[in-house]
Amino acid sequence: MNAQKKEVTEALKSFIESRFTNRPLIIEAMQYSLFAGGKRFRPILTLASADTVEVSNKTQHRELAKPVACAIELIHTYSLVHDDLPAMDNDVLRRGRPTSHVKYGEGLAILAGDGLLTEAFRIVTELPHTNDPIINKRKLHVAKYLAFAAGPLGMVGGQSTDLEASGQILKRKNKLLDEEQLKSMHRLKTGALIRAAAVSGAIMVGASKEQLRCVEGYAHELGLGFQIIDDILDVEGAQEKLGKTAGKDATLGKSTYPAFWGIDKSRRLATEAIEKAKSHLKEATLNGRLHEIADWVLSRSN
Amino acid sequence: MNAQKKEVTEALKSFIESRFTNRPLIIEAMQYSLFAGGKRFRPILTLASADTVEVSNKTQHRELAKPVACAIELIHTYSLVHDDLPAMDNDVLRRGRPTSHVKYGEGLAILAGDGLLTEAFRIVTELPHTNDPIINKRKLHVAKYLAFAAGPLGMVGGQSTDLEASGQILKRKNKLLDEEQLKSMHRLKTGALIRAAAVSGAIMVGASKEQLRCVEGYAHELGLGFQIIDDILDVEGAQEKLGKTAGKDATLGKSTYPAFWGIDKSRRLATEAIEKAKSHLKEATLNGRLHEIADWVLSRSN
Repeated sequence: MNAQKKEVTEALKSFIESRFTNRPLIIEAMQYSLFAGGKRFRPILTLASADTVEVSNKTQHRELAKPVACAIELIHTYSLVHDDLPAMDNDVLRRGRPTSHVKYGEGLAILAGDGLLTEAFRIVTELPHTNDPIINKRKLHVAKYLAFAAGPLGMVGGQSTDLEASGQILKRKNKLLDEEQLKSMHRLKTGALIRAAAVSGAIMVGASKEQLRCVEGYAHELGLGFQIIDDILDVEGAQEKLGKTAGKDATLGKSTYPAFWGIDKSRRLATEAIEKAKSHLKEATLNGRLHEIADWVLSRSN
Repeated sequence: MNAQKKEVTEALKSFIESRFTNRPLIIEAMQYSLFAGGKRFRPILTLASADTVEVSNKTQHRELAKPVACAIELIHTYSLVHDDLPAMDNDVLRRGRPTSHVKYGEGLAILAGDGLLTEAFRIVTELPHTNDPIINKRKLHVAKYLAFAAGPLGMVGGQSTDLEASGQILKRKNKLLDEEQLKSMHRLKTGALIRAAAVSGAIMVGASKEQLRCVEGYAHELGLGFQIIDDILDVEGAQEKLGKTAGKDATLGKSTYPAFWGIDKSRRLATEAIEKAKSHLKEATLNGRLHEIADWVLSRSN
């Protein structure tokens, strides 16, 4: 994963730093959060998905999939910056550093998030530069998929349900979630973007409908497994390793997998999800790094 | 303008309401701000620009330009919701109603803004539904142009400079703007999206490079005129008519045109800008409603 992580960070640098030769404060704030480390899980998934679907011309595939991989990391980073705000999860530590609003104040943190989200759509629709109608069609497909995954019927919708559940909406009582609602909230809040990460890599390299269906099934289960492990790490993990405040979910009274099922059953559910994810790969005989990523999700410690 | 306004609001309803059959809270909050009234100046400009470039097949042009007109109104509305937040301009009244965070709390207001921005890119890349490679190319062109105009080198960048100038960045002193910096800030903060509104209408109906250049020149001057009048109305206007808090700029110690040049010279500068805008139209013999819109900008009272 480390080589992949480096490749993604280099690509982010080339798309973002090269574009902003002088650095007004808003760009500094965007870069502060974007280059704070982070696992780069989602963009690595995008590149692996592009590689897996067709390995014949790896170099070209990378060039097609890299912009969207970076755009997804920008969207993920924007969501962290906004989720950490005092009006939401009110967190002061992220990726081992003070959060954006602690460093720059709330106003600029909100704008930095807005800038990262907007820049993601700039990258997806602009890069790679080409007039090829086939690539244009794929870019539009990816942009639509991303907007859907990140929007009110995806990530933003999930975060809104999370706020409602924890009683953070003005003049409204909290609304405890049952099991199904918890699953549905996570499917939107983290699952949708993870699915988009995998699927958009496959779209960019011209995957068939059947391949897209399998990648989507894989990523759906992968996202579920990822979220359950995230919840477990919030209970068990060491803050230094996580790079973010541990034990936060319990403090905020959030509905989590361990809170519903305990640690042991949660771990079993995560293992099951990862097994299902792999079985989707077998259906379309997709090989390569998507298997390794599935294993990593289960064994990760941060 | 009233017939146009109605057409835009109908289109917004058809793109937004039809998509969200059940209404989770996040959708309610997005719609609260989107359907609070508003002049619909930017989308009207988009439709007028599309009509002006080529009037041969108006019906088809409307169908091509309507989605992007609506997307621009979504982006404009998101920027109002975020700008009104306590961490930015801290305003409680907008379009004659309590602002989003007063109604729903800050967390949901931030998310509603995020949702509106994301949904704008969904609409631009998805609609109108077609596989025509020429339309696909135009959609990508518009999406890029919009992302640029709304992003850190456009609207978000201008708002960030505004925060810096009024001393709202943590641990930093305010940074008073000189005349050039004031102009540049407004060019980004309001000018960029107004330009995008006009240009994207023209792009969608297949304007020539020369026509695009003239529309761009027109919209640049129009945006300047619009902003100067906005500043004057903030000093002179009646709150009931504006639908937002009057006298706000002075309270926040903001750099404005009247503060630099006084009301009379500001009004003269606005008139000059509108004259220049019209002369750009003459260059490409663009007729029709773009002239009327320029006149309206100068005479408006809200």
